[in-house]
Amino acid sequence: MSAMAEQSLDVTSVMNALGSRAKSAAQILSTATTEQKNLALTAAADALIAAATEILAANVKDVEAGRAKGMTAAFVDRLTLDTSRVEAIAQGLRDIADLDDPVGVVIATIDRPNGLKIERVRTPLGVIGVIFESRPNVTADAGALCLKSGNAVILRGGSDSYHSSNAIHAALQAGLKKADLPVDAIQLVPTTDRAAVGELLKGLQGSVDVIVPRGGKSLVARVQDEARVPVFSHLEGICHIYVDESADLEMAEKIVVNAKMRRTGICGAAETLLIAENIAEKAVPALCNALHAKGCEIRGDDEVQRLFAGATPATNDDWTTEYLDAIISVKIVPDVHAAIQHVQAHSSGHTECIIADDANAVAAFFAQVDSAIVMHNASTQFADGGEFGMGAEIGIATGKMHARGPVGVEQLTSFKYLVHGTGQTRP
Amino acid sequence: MSAMAEQSLDVTSVMNALGSRAKSAAQILSTATTEQKNLALTAAADALIAAATEILAANVKDVEAGRAKGMTAAFVDRLTLDTSRVEAIAQGLRDIADLDDPVGVVIATIDRPNGLKIERVRTPLGVIGVIFESRPNVTADAGALCLKSGNAVILRGGSDSYHSSNAIHAALQAGLKKADLPVDAIQLVPTTDRAAVGELLKGLQGSVDVIVPRGGKSLVARVQDEARVPVFSHLEGICHIYVDESADLEMAEKIVVNAKMRRTGICGAAETLLIAENIAEKAVPALCNALHAKGCEIRGDDEVQRLFAGATPATNDDWTTEYLDAIISVKIVPDVHAAIQHVQAHSSGHTECIIADDANAVAAFFAQVDSAIVMHNASTQFADGGEFGMGAEIGIATGKMHARGPVGVEQLTSFKYLVHGTGQTRP
Repeated sequence: MSAMAEQSLDVTSVMNALGSRAKSAAQILSTATTEQKNLALTAAADALIAAATEILAANVKDVEAGRAKGMTAAFVDRLTLDTSRVEAIAQGLRDIADLDDPVGVVIATIDRPNGLKIERVRTPLGVIGVIFESRPNVTADAGALCLKSGNAVILRGGSDSYHSSNAIHAALQAGLKKADLPVDAIQLVPTTDRAAVGELLKGLQGSVDVIVPRGGKSLVARVQDEARVPVFSHLEGICHIYVDESADLEMAEKIVVNAKMRRTGICGAAETLLIAENIAEKAVPALCNALHAKGCEIRGDDEVQRLFAGATPATNDDWTTEYLDAIISVKIVPDVHAAIQHVQAHSSGHTECIIADDANAVAAFFAQVDSAIVMHNASTQFADGGEFGMGAEIGIATGKMHARGPVGVEQLTSFKYLVHGTGQTRP
Repeated sequence: MSAMAEQSLDVTSVMNALGSRAKSAAQILSTATTEQKNLALTAAADALIAAATEILAANVKDVEAGRAKGMTAAFVDRLTLDTSRVEAIAQGLRDIADLDDPVGVVIATIDRPNGLKIERVRTPLGVIGVIFESRPNVTADAGALCLKSGNAVILRGGSDSYHSSNAIHAALQAGLKKADLPVDAIQLVPTTDRAAVGELLKGLQGSVDVIVPRGGKSLVARVQDEARVPVFSHLEGICHIYVDESADLEMAEKIVVNAKMRRTGICGAAETLLIAENIAEKAVPALCNALHAKGCEIRGDDEVQRLFAGATPATNDDWTTEYLDAIISVKIVPDVHAAIQHVQAHSSGHTECIIADDANAVAAFFAQVDSAIVMHNASTQFADGGEFGMGAEIGIATGKMHARGPVGVEQLTSFKYLVHGTGQTRP
C-alpha cells in the first residue's frame, strides 16, 4: 500500500470515528435541558476569558505562519486575535445563551374529531458539519449555535487558523464538561489534511445530517458539488435593487448608497441597480453621482453611459458578477415587469429590493421574485439573521429546502409529531 | 455510435426538455390564484368522468399485458380500474381542490425596532419529480397535490400502467387548459425507458427541486441512492409498540391488534411489540392470543416462547424486518428505558407508540424516541396525512430535512421573507 493510500485510510477512520462519537453525543444533547446548554455556553465564555493568554499565544503561531506564507494583509487581519476580539467571542457565546431555546417548542397543534391531539414539536437535526475558512471566531460562533439548538457539531476550520481554533475549542469543551454534557458535542477535526473535508462531505457513514460551509465562493462551490448530505449555503449574493418610476428619489439615493457601499464585502451588498426608464434622465445622474462620490465604480449599459459620463461599459458578465467590491452594474429597464424578468434571469436567489411608492409594482415584485429575501424600501444590507431578530446566524441559505434566508438556531432544528391518544384505534 | 448510446442520448434530451418546460410552467404556477388552481382540479375531475370509457379501455390494455406477463393477482388488482375507481379518483381531485391553499400564507411576522416589518410567506418549491409504481390513481393524486401547492410536476409511473396513466394524464391537462394554466404544469414522462428515471434523479440540469418516490422498498432504495436532488421518502416503516407495565391491558390489546392487523401492508402497521417484563406473565399470553386469533404469526424471544406456546423463535433479523404481513416480532424488555434503546437501535424512524398510564414513562418515550411520529395510547395505523387532518398526502417522510412525517400540500412548499421598509438604511 502506498504512503498516500495509508494516509487516506487513516483520515477515513479518524473521521468516521469522529462521526460516530458525534452521533452518540447528539442523542444525549437532544434531551439536554435549556439550563444545561446555557451553562455550557456561559462556562465556555468564562473559560475563553481565563485562557486568553494561551489563545493569543496560539494565534501568534498562526499569524506568523500566515505572514511567512505571504498571506494578504486582509487575510492576516481576519486571522489575528487580540484581547478585545477574544472578549467579543466570549460575549457572542453569552448572547447565544440568551436566545430562546428552539428545542421542544410546540409549533402546531391539531385536534382531531376522534379525540387524538397531535403536536408538532421542534427537535434537533442531529449532527452538523461546519466547514469554514481561517476565521478563528467561527469556531466559537458555529459551535455555540449548534449546541444551543441541541445538535452535535463537527468543526473543520481553515488550516491557517489551526492553532487558534484548537485553543478556542478547548474552552468550548471546558464549558461542556462544566455542564455535564459530552465533550464530543463539539468536536474539531484533528488534522489539517484536506482529505478530511472530503470525508465530512460524504457524511461519515450516515452520521452527518447537514453541512454548513462558511467562506468564499470556491469553498461553497466545492461543498455543494461534493456533498452527499444536505447543505445550507449560498454560493453568492448577486443582490438587485430596482428603482421604480414611482420611487421617492431621495429615499432611493440613501438606500442605494447604503446597500452598495456600507460594506461592500458582505453577501447582502447590492451588485446591480435597475432603473425604470421613465425616470432615467433624472435618476441615473442622481444615483450614479451619489455612488461615485463614495468611491464606487459604475458599469452601465449604453443609456446609463449617456446619462452619466463617469460610467464604463457593462459587459454581459457584469450582470452575473458578485463584485464584493466598490463596483456596481447599472441598467435601464422599461418597467417593474422587465425588472422582475432581469432578476429572474440573473439573481442568485439571495436578496432583492424594490424602491417604489406604487403598491401594484411592489405587489408584483413581491409575488414574482423568488429569492430568499425580497425587500421594499429598505437596504439589502439588512439581509442578516441579527437584523431579522433571530440572534446570531450560522449563514444565509439560498436553497429552498428546510432553511432559506438567515440560518439561526430555529433553522438548525427539525420537528416530530407527538400524538396523544386515549385508546383510539383506526376504523 | 451504437443504437443504445443513441437511445440514451435521446432520453437525456427528451428528459431535459421536460425539465426545462416544467421550470417555465412552475414560474407561472407560483403566482396562479387559488381559484385558477381549484378550477383546474375540478375541471380535471369532470374530464375524468367524461373520459371514463377511454380510461377504462386504456386500462384494459395494461391489465391484459400484465396478465400475459404473469403478474400476481394482487398486482393486477392494484392496476385494475373500474367505474367506481375512476369516480373515486375524480372525488380525490375535488377533495384536494377543497383543501386550503398553502401558497402565500404568512407563517411568521417579525416587527423590528427600526420599523422594518418582516413576513415569512409560503412559496411553492418549484418542480417536483414523482416516481411511482403501477398504480394508475397516483397519476391523479400526485399531480393534483403538486398543482394545489403551486408546483410543476413531472410524473414517472410504472411501465405496466403506462396506458392508464396517459389516459388519466390527458384529463389532468384538460383541467389545466380550462383554467388557463400551462399544460406543462403536469407532465408525464413519455417513455417507459428506465433510463428516464436515472435522468430524473440527476435533476434535469437543475430543473428538479425534489423527488418523491411512491412505491416499494427497492424503488425507494434506488431513488435514495441515485438521486442528486433532495428526496422526500421513507425506506420502510418498522413501527414499534411498547406496552409499559403501567398500561391498561384491555386498551393495549385493542391497539396492538389494530396496529398490526387492520391492514398489514401499510407503512404504519406495527412490526415489533415490546412488553415490559413486570407484566409479561399476563400481557404476553393476552396480547399474543389476541393477535394469533386474528391470524397473526408470533416470533418471540425465549421468554415470549415460554409464555406463549404458539410463538416461533425470533432471529436477529426479525428486529429489523418490515414484514408488511400478518407476522409480528415480540420481545420482553426490562422497562421503558430499555424499550427506548431497542427502538433507537432498530427503528426506521417512521412511527412508534407507547401504551402506558405512567406520565413519566410517556414523557421519556416522547422525549427520547426520535421518529417522525411518536404516539401514546393510539394505533400506529393513524400515521397518515388524512388522519392527521392534512388532507391527502403524497407520502410519509422519515428524513429530518424540510418534510418529516406525512407530506401534504403544506410540506410541498418552501417560504421566502418579505421585508416591508419605509426607507431604512443599515447603520
